[in-house]
Amino acid sequence: MSGTKAVAENMLWGGRFTQGLDPLMVKYNESLPYDRIFWKQDISGSIAFARANLKGGILSEHEFAEIQRGFKEIAEEWESNSFVVKANDEDIHTANERRLGEIIGKDIGGKLHTGRSRNEQVSTDMRLWLREELRKLESYLCDLIKVTIARAENEIDYIMPGYTHLQKAQPVRWSHWLLSHAASFASELERLRFVIKRVNRSPLGCGALAGNPFKIDRVGMAKELGFEGLLYNSMNAVADRDFVLETMQWGSSLMVKISRWAEDLIIYSSLEFSFVRLADAYSTGSSLMPQKKNADSLELLRGKSGRAFGQMAGLLCTIKGLPTTYNKDLQESVEPMLDHIKTVGDSIQIATGVLSTMTVNADKMYAALAPEMLATEFADYLVRKGVPFREGHHVSGRVVALAEEKGVPMDKLTFEQLKGIDARFDEDVQSCLDYHRAVELKDATGGTSKAAVLEQVGVLKELLGQA
Amino acid sequence: MSGTKAVAENMLWGGRFTQGLDPLMVKYNESLPYDRIFWKQDISGSIAFARANLKGGILSEHEFAEIQRGFKEIAEEWESNSFVVKANDEDIHTANERRLGEIIGKDIGGKLHTGRSRNEQVSTDMRLWLREELRKLESYLCDLIKVTIARAENEIDYIMPGYTHLQKAQPVRWSHWLLSHAASFASELERLRFVIKRVNRSPLGCGALAGNPFKIDRVGMAKELGFEGLLYNSMNAVADRDFVLETMQWGSSLMVKISRWAEDLIIYSSLEFSFVRLADAYSTGSSLMPQKKNADSLELLRGKSGRAFGQMAGLLCTIKGLPTTYNKDLQESVEPMLDHIKTVGDSIQIATGVLSTMTVNADKMYAALAPEMLATEFADYLVRKGVPFREGHHVSGRVVALAEEKGVPMDKLTFEQLKGIDARFDEDVQSCLDYHRAVELKDATGGTSKAAVLEQVGVLKELLGQA
Amino acid sequence: MSGTKAVAENMLWGGRFTQGLDPLMVKYNESLPYDRIFWKQDISGSIAFARANLKGGILSEHEFAEIQRGFKEIAEEWESNSFVVKANDEDIHTANERRLGEIIGKDIGGKLHTGRSRNEQVSTDMRLWLREELRKLESYLCDLIKVTIARAENEIDYIMPGYTHLQKAQPVRWSHWLLSHAASFASELERLRFVIKRVNRSPLGCGALAGNPFKIDRVGMAKELGFEGLLYNSMNAVADRDFVLETMQWGSSLMVKISRWAEDLIIYSSLEFSFVRLADAYSTGSSLMPQKKNADSLELLRGKSGRAFGQMAGLLCTIKGLPTTYNKDLQESVEPMLDHIKTVGDSIQIATGVLSTMTVNADKMYAALAPEMLATEFADYLVRKGVPFREGHHVSGRVVALAEEKGVPMDKLTFEQLKGIDARFDEDVQSCLDYHRAVELKDATGGTSKAAVLEQVGVLKELLGQA
Amino acid sequence: MSGTKAVAENMLWGGRFTQGLDPLMVKYNESLPYDRIFWKQDISGSIAFARANLKGGILSEHEFAEIQRGFKEIAEEWESNSFVVKANDEDIHTANERRLGEIIGKDIGGKLHTGRSRNEQVSTDMRLWLREELRKLESYLCDLIKVTIARAENEIDYIMPGYTHLQKAQPVRWSHWLLSHAASFASELERLRFVIKRVNRSPLGCGALAGNPFKIDRVGMAKELGFEGLLYNSMNAVADRDFVLETMQWGSSLMVKISRWAEDLIIYSSLEFSFVRLADAYSTGSSLMPQKKNADSLELLRGKSGRAFGQMAGLLCTIKGLPTTYNKDLQESVEPMLDHIKTVGDSIQIATGVLSTMTVNADKMYAALAPEMLATEFADYLVRKGVPFREGHHVSGRVVALAEEKGVPMDKLTFEQLKGIDARFDEDVQSCLDYHRAVELKDATGGTSKAAVLEQVGVLKELLGQA
Repeated sequence: MSGTKAVAENMLWGGRFTQGLDPLMVKYNESLPYDRIFWKQDISGSIAFARANLKGGILSEHEFAEIQRGFKEIAEEWESNSFVVKANDEDIHTANERRLGEIIGKDIGGKLHTGRSRNEQVSTDMRLWLREELRKLESYLCDLIKVTIARAENEIDYIMPGYTHLQKAQPVRWSHWLLSHAASFASELERLRFVIKRVNRSPLGCGALAGNPFKIDRVGMAKELGFEGLLYNSMNAVADRDFVLETMQWGSSLMVKISRWAEDLIIYSSLEFSFVRLADAYSTGSSLMPQKKNADSLELLRGKSGRAFGQMAGLLCTIKGLPTTYNKDLQESVEPMLDHIKTVGDSIQIATGVLSTMTVNADKMYAALAPEMLATEFADYLVRKGVPFREGHHVSGRVVALAEEKGVPMDKLTFEQLKGIDARFDEDVQSCLDYHRAVELKDATGGTSKAAVLEQVGVLKELLGQA
Repeated sequence: MSGTKAVAENMLWGGRFTQGLDPLMVKYNESLPYDRIFWKQDISGSIAFARANLKGGILSEHEFAEIQRGFKEIAEEWESNSFVVKANDEDIHTANERRLGEIIGKDIGGKLHTGRSRNEQVSTDMRLWLREELRKLESYLCDLIKVTIARAENEIDYIMPGYTHLQKAQPVRWSHWLLSHAASFASELERLRFVIKRVNRSPLGCGALAGNPFKIDRVGMAKELGFEGLLYNSMNAVADRDFVLETMQWGSSLMVKISRWAEDLIIYSSLEFSFVRLADAYSTGSSLMPQKKNADSLELLRGKSGRAFGQMAGLLCTIKGLPTTYNKDLQESVEPMLDHIKTVGDSIQIATGVLSTMTVNADKMYAALAPEMLATEFADYLVRKGVPFREGHHVSGRVVALAEEKGVPMDKLTFEQLKGIDARFDEDVQSCLDYHRAVELKDATGGTSKAAVLEQVGVLKELLGQA
Repeated sequence: MSGTKAVAENMLWGGRFTQGLDPLMVKYNESLPYDRIFWKQDISGSIAFARANLKGGILSEHEFAEIQRGFKEIAEEWESNSFVVKANDEDIHTANERRLGEIIGKDIGGKLHTGRSRNEQVSTDMRLWLREELRKLESYLCDLIKVTIARAENEIDYIMPGYTHLQKAQPVRWSHWLLSHAASFASELERLRFVIKRVNRSPLGCGALAGNPFKIDRVGMAKELGFEGLLYNSMNAVADRDFVLETMQWGSSLMVKISRWAEDLIIYSSLEFSFVRLADAYSTGSSLMPQKKNADSLELLRGKSGRAFGQMAGLLCTIKGLPTTYNKDLQESVEPMLDHIKTVGDSIQIATGVLSTMTVNADKMYAALAPEMLATEFADYLVRKGVPFREGHHVSGRVVALAEEKGVPMDKLTFEQLKGIDARFDEDVQSCLDYHRAVELKDATGGTSKAAVLEQVGVLKELLGQA
Repeated sequence: MSGTKAVAENMLWGGRFTQGLDPLMVKYNESLPYDRIFWKQDISGSIAFARANLKGGILSEHEFAEIQRGFKEIAEEWESNSFVVKANDEDIHTANERRLGEIIGKDIGGKLHTGRSRNEQVSTDMRLWLREELRKLESYLCDLIKVTIARAENEIDYIMPGYTHLQKAQPVRWSHWLLSHAASFASELERLRFVIKRVNRSPLGCGALAGNPFKIDRVGMAKELGFEGLLYNSMNAVADRDFVLETMQWGSSLMVKISRWAEDLIIYSSLEFSFVRLADAYSTGSSLMPQKKNADSLELLRGKSGRAFGQMAGLLCTIKGLPTTYNKDLQESVEPMLDHIKTVGDSIQIATGVLSTMTVNADKMYAALAPEMLATEFADYLVRKGVPFREGHHVSGRVVALAEEKGVPMDKLTFEQLKGIDARFDEDVQSCLDYHRAVELKDATGGTSKAAVLEQVGVLKELLGQA
């Protein structure tokens, strides 16, 4: 724990410290290895801040021009990957400001931070960056829904077993299954749009905690930076990381939904089901068993839902019970946020890739339908003849039982056998055994008839702005 | 594991089972002990469903009237706590329908469930119940914000140390601290309103998974029940519990914010700080130490944030990786939801009670201000004379260091000593040591000057509809 | 927030309070509704404490006898459910001591708490209760493993597809699958035994935080109460809830393992697999679809793993960042602990019931074997002839590909076709297509040959003390 | 999603694939960027495996020697950072084996993987790596406890206020506070030693899932690799990641304990308390406020407890509900494990650094003692005179109340005033106001008297092997 070192002069807060830092502590503390990703936002925020101080009389036109020039050069260094990190550049704010001083001189460079704190700066950078990333995620999510709609329209005639409890329940359109997940993704798309608005509020001009003493024009800065509003209390503005937590709550919800979609497809791509077959691009083989074709992409999607959740859970635990305003604990929001956004963004794109290239085997789906799935049709048949549903339900239960007893599929029972169960069965009872009829009868809104499915497509297209 | 028992005839799905259930399994499976809380929603939903089937020709006027009559009687039984639960009433849906059959006879009672599934019923009941509860929580939350505003207006002249890292940083108004938490609660109020809209969508008419085969009027039912829209895919409608998860994400975010507020107040009510003193109603004593006055209310608020989070984390883990549509795992959403709503609702009210009755010691707050908190004022002073902020910052650092070296408070340094540090200090430098001036200088939007604080009050009142 | 009420005289800490409590706060604060479950432990602990104070000279023989007599009566009241709770009985400790005073008089009753604090008392009660419950769970877990072993021995000749990635991989014994889960449960059994030891340490005699001032014999008390050791620092002893957290970490790990076992069985009981069929006692039917038989028991097991995890996650979040020793937040450890133990205990028993009564369809398992699962056997065959495995692996890949190309199962390829792929195939290559041979070849420790499976049975029996 | 590319010939499982991979999918799937950290373990495991196959007759002496030679070269490449990764090196196993083939030729290199699967390999590598890292963590943790003991011994005469509910409760030794945390860390040290044993079991020789068909000597391999036992079921061995989960449960428990220790010190280092002062090496200043000295190190420690927890929570969620044996989801255990170990290891060392270099202000501690903290001494005084504790407790409550009423500290009450409250007070009652006496009276095991504190030191030294 000894190896300290001399305090370098460009350590911003070093004025009154006479000792150095434990080298492990330096690493434990520094954020530049990951917050450098915000270099562009940090520069934009600094320029907006400087422009506001220009208007406020803190900076002269010349000083502002110099600051702009300096940052232009710094931006080019970052872009060309030639920015040289120095020993005490603990974070992106320090690094950029240190470099600015080198380029334009400390006299002017030293004016940049007037009335500003890193507390407001880090929040500004994070919000700007996150806003842009979430907009990308929004477009990825739209793509996923679009591909789902496209398949739903193309493959609307495929009929498959609908499952509850992983047991065959009632026949549904494959498109209905597709849209059940699209509906779930669409719900998260709406929520994402809400989250973006909330992320996109400006903390700039709030100082360390108490506010800005130089009458800075917060509205003007927010406008320049594309924010949709201000955070209205300076202590809250620097303390708050709920925009990250809320993003991760959204992300983990979406990932859980993707995990359910993936689970379905993993099961459907098992040999026992064989409803779908993944493109080679999204499967892998086995190092030991040459016949295997594993749905690795789907398994990773399912597995990464845990990762995304863990990041959210961890951040919530980090924030819980913190005292007021900024505490260094909040630095622990940054890395998880970066990985969260990458994980979710990649996952949506992978899901889209899987779905775009997957082969569907309509014959296997149809072959998997079982007459027992039509048992309810017998009950409904009797309902249409005025029989109470509960009675019809018991009658159809006896139909299922008789088939089991005779050891034949339900559709091989003779009309006489059916009649023997309930005298109210007429010859047209055989129509109950028609899967297509069963599917088309579910034609109330939200059902699996062709019209009801296409109605859903319309709703989704509207959401995507394609109506 | 042996003790099975005969299958009672009112076990709805018992038609083909010939064995009974393990008694422990009965308990493990049944939900009536907790979902009975939905009795009113279950009845409303059933009446709306029956009315729609009346319009659709499934029920006659007489049958519908009988169903209404039966449910009126059942409702009275629940209200008077005289509803008798029978052995196979595993859930509220089964219990209500069983009782209906007893009252109006099975011939008509057996028609109620026509085309309906418990899958849609449970989701309908939960959404109706949750919508009402969330509206209550909304009003509790408004109360908490109102009380905060009232104190902020009354106590606007109190000045306290503002903290970052639990270190004295800059003086702020006590009201500014109050509003920093109000801002954080207000953000969750906005989000709650969004969540309520999303909860308040109707799954009714979706059947077990495939939709309704009797052309039921879903829009009409939704209108009768006060829903603001439909869920558009029947498979998604029965599978989805994201409305519970989203509610809990909101609830755990709010509780984390309350935990931070509570943490501040716990610290402020320690003898070392003594800024506030809780009313006896919200404190307790010690069984061993008579002098103690513990902030139990605040500690419970802080502690219960963990509980609320755990419910959300648990539900997310339960849902993760589930295959499509309804699986019994989803039953595990109900109990956590009930406790979550109670926990959050009680907590908001307790917080309001604590805040309403708490005594604030303005003198202690003022006495806790330390001249060092004005160090930045020296830097700002120099900035106003054209000195670059960074340079000013170093100068003010030397002021702090000199005071430490001399072993005197910073405000006891003589003008000569100050001048010795930097010749640009003029006699008016003493004004830097005025806490009120320091507070009033932070007058940009969001700052701690009186005008800026009152502006925040206005923003909050607008949100509460009081503007 | 007004409705306060007079402070009753039996409110232990009420001496200096002049106001009452908000009724909601009373409920929010009180723990008796759930900590009454500790009545027996609370009494045992009090008697042990009194006996130690007898030895230490604080109590006379008569006083101790009276205390014993009083608690005997209280215990009978709890047992016969006739204990009358009074208004200010906020927790079990207060209730028991209040009642003791009523029975034996306050002069003696008031001596019980000498040198004691509720802080040590609640921890003692929780540890005593938890120790007993965990021992029950240990026996349930042994039962589950025993049933697994019994099936593994009985059904050792069944061969099934072994899966990786839910894709058919290699044939394994059904018993090998059974034991794979038994091994996982056995690992948690070992861990449980470790946890019990750690729970079973005594905090009694630690006071509120600083220790006991009356030279109490902590070792003697611990011995009387069956503790296996002491907690060695009084501040830690009252602050610590890691015994609850560690229990829940164990419980949530076990439940996750049960969730994987349940997932397998849910898939295996789908119609597509049909390897197993649950007893009616552990399945339920559908209110709409009479043909359904749903594995509700398994789905609840899987779902409740989320609940168990959520309790652990919540408690950890509650504890995180708490300052030293007792804070009221810790009360939030009790209810989750109670529900956790119930959830885990019930779940193990349900799992045992499911496994005991489940029907296994060996024919379906065998029929699900596919020749492609033997592809690796061809590679191993060539290895035995000195061919590098990687080369053999590619050859067997070509065998699989040829079968796909010809559209025949791999075992219908002629010897000539095989020979055409690789000249090193001799006539005995057909033996590669024997599932039993493939299974028996895996006879290294831990493999799926009969001997290797029986070796595992032996290991497990040893752990259960049956060796 | 189009950009596929030709399948390279060194793609191990590529034999039957005719398409390439989506470039994003390649990245999403590959683990080499992080599992390269296992290069050494992967090589050791491979050599042990090859040696076992040598004994089993699969490899000749020459072949084994060649494999050893190849790996020696590969190890040198990794060590000198000159290993060249190729396009299809998706994981460390593939990379090492690909390179082996290049160095020693495919004829021999291709024999390495005989009877082996990456499923067992990844688990072997992870366990070997984790075992070593956990041993390092064990030594870090011992260091932290040693430093605590050293301070406790040196500073045993400092007396401070002991807190419950962050309220001054009773005086305790500073060393007692130190050891309360040491006790909590020591409990995790014991648990860590248990975890290491469980991590250190060998999956090697289990194949893909079914076992090894070449009679490999698993015991011999385990011995060579330093494992303490075998995993006894091959399906379990490849499926199981509970060793990672258990490690993270341990790690998150430890971090929560560190978070409480950090919380105490953050509060104690506030200006209001001023009990301790961090070395500059572990504090940082403010970019805006030159007077600030923030306990960043402690705040990061507290904050990172959330991160460590989130990794555990995420992994548990990832594993939950997975079907049997290996699924690609399990890859999501690796990165969180790596970061978890780093986070926990760094944190323990930082905590040790903070504690080693921190300045303690015994005067401030003593000055913070308040006479009210001795209220219980009055009750105990009366107990020693035969007064029931409850009565004594009320009397001492009246003492506190009188002092409040008179507006004087409790120790300024006159003997007459005390006598007026209770006639049983004799002149020696003033001894109750002696803090040292109060501390020394708590001399039962675990208490805060000097002897009791030194007894605790002894217990800890024994655990560290220093007794």
